[in-house]
Amino acid sequence: MNIAIAGLGIIGGSFAKAIKKYTDHYIYGINRSPQPLEDAVACGAIDEIGTADSLSRADILILGTFPEAAVKFVRDNAEKIPKNCIVIDSSGIKSEICPQMIELSEKYGFPFVGCHPMAGKEQNGFSASEADLFRNASCIIIPCTGDERSVKTISDLALKIGFGRVVYSTPEEHDRMIAFTSQLPHVIACSYVLSPVCKNHNGFSAGSYRDVSRVAHINEKLWAELFIENKDSLIEEIELLTQHINMIKNAVQNGDRAELEAILAQSRRVKEELGE
Amino acid sequence: MNIAIAGLGIIGGSFAKAIKKYTDHYIYGINRSPQPLEDAVACGAIDEIGTADSLSRADILILGTFPEAAVKFVRDNAEKIPKNCIVIDSSGIKSEICPQMIELSEKYGFPFVGCHPMAGKEQNGFSASEADLFRNASCIIIPCTGDERSVKTISDLALKIGFGRVVYSTPEEHDRMIAFTSQLPHVIACSYVLSPVCKNHNGFSAGSYRDVSRVAHINEKLWAELFIENKDSLIEEIELLTQHINMIKNAVQNGDRAELEAILAQSRRVKEELGE
Repeated sequence: MNIAIAGLGIIGGSFAKAIKKYTDHYIYGINRSPQPLEDAVACGAIDEIGTADSLSRADILILGTFPEAAVKFVRDNAEKIPKNCIVIDSSGIKSEICPQMIELSEKYGFPFVGCHPMAGKEQNGFSASEADLFRNASCIIIPCTGDERSVKTISDLALKIGFGRVVYSTPEEHDRMIAFTSQLPHVIACSYVLSPVCKNHNGFSAGSYRDVSRVAHINEKLWAELFIENKDSLIEEIELLTQHINMIKNAVQNGDRAELEAILAQSRRVKEELGE
Repeated sequence: MNIAIAGLGIIGGSFAKAIKKYTDHYIYGINRSPQPLEDAVACGAIDEIGTADSLSRADILILGTFPEAAVKFVRDNAEKIPKNCIVIDSSGIKSEICPQMIELSEKYGFPFVGCHPMAGKEQNGFSASEADLFRNASCIIIPCTGDERSVKTISDLALKIGFGRVVYSTPEEHDRMIAFTSQLPHVIACSYVLSPVCKNHNGFSAGSYRDVSRVAHINEKLWAELFIENKDSLIEEIELLTQHINMIKNAVQNGDRAELEAILAQSRRVKEELGE
């Protein structure tokens, strides 16, 4: 297949490297700035620097950009996307993005399949991309306007390039779950490191500090967009979290050891029941 | 040296295993229940099952029990502890513990050195102990009534059995820092997993979920004691955290992208300035 990848950041770049490593597909790379394209050609992550015109030859178009930029790219280039080209995004939010993509998909005739690779790290950009970033990760697929064949093509490709599993979902379920599994930990990490004592943690810290603070090394433009476009679910999760924190705080404040042990035991049981 | 270890849980057991692995010291193990003692003899982690009477031959007494139980053990056995035996604890809180230990130390004549190994994991008990649990970790030392020679003996032992560094502190500084680096992450993890969607996270989660939730697999009796005995510092850190979470929440609620980016960039810079 010919695969066009628009946006060669950590996710688009990792798609390119993984596809070159595990398949024989031909890759056109498309990017606003030239440097990642040159780097990608140099290291063999893409076969060719593409333009919007390359889309006419694409069997799959992978959008590696920020969510709103992905919609804009498709809108600006919709007429060049062949009707048999499967378009997939990689956005961390779906309820804001999928309806716009579905509208464009129905207007111009190409199938759109929402996609969210559950992988990442604290670095950004093409230089942070890795052929095995997706290894054993979950690939969430929102079928949208993709027919059975298109969805199977994307699912097969995902498993072939290293994903450990494919999970099918809806935009609503996806956003509700991601608010908890991904966005809330970023809110926590960024809030946590703002404590005035954080700068003196060295020598007094171990795994707990490292794990909670890790994702505070954040790309603020990307995450501000993700948070605001998933406002309702994220606010709901933030409110649940602060309620639970306050439950613990009150038990500590009151020196109520029985109550505190009961709350902590409830948390322990959640982890145990999950086998974690 | 003859070293007595009272309390063969994960910390006492790891001290025993590390001392046997890296030194030639002789170890007496003391424990309320017999099973860990039998296991420790069987795997060579201790040389002999000790009793309170073994303390008369000890050059060092390491307390591996919960904080209050450590004070009680010393109080109950103070008359048997030789005046040249260096007593160290391993408690995660110091302001509540050190003054009581100092009082006993001054009354009975043995030096007491507060000690907190910055290492642990989500499992408990002797079966979770490891000879290399302390590898590269920080060992916090609160000199208390230890003279220079006693403090040096403990510091040298710590470095010999695998600790990466020794950090000297006071009970007040220790407790303020630990509230942030260790206790707050446990409060966060336990609050986080109480979200009703937590049970469905599989397939929608990756490193962020794993890292934030890890320590929710908690020993509720130990941590309820640690939280309540460090109430003031912990409440202060909880309030700072919830203020910062609410700052982010308000920016999300208002859809104020510039404000949200500014907060997240501030967090990113904290991590960058720490070189993390």
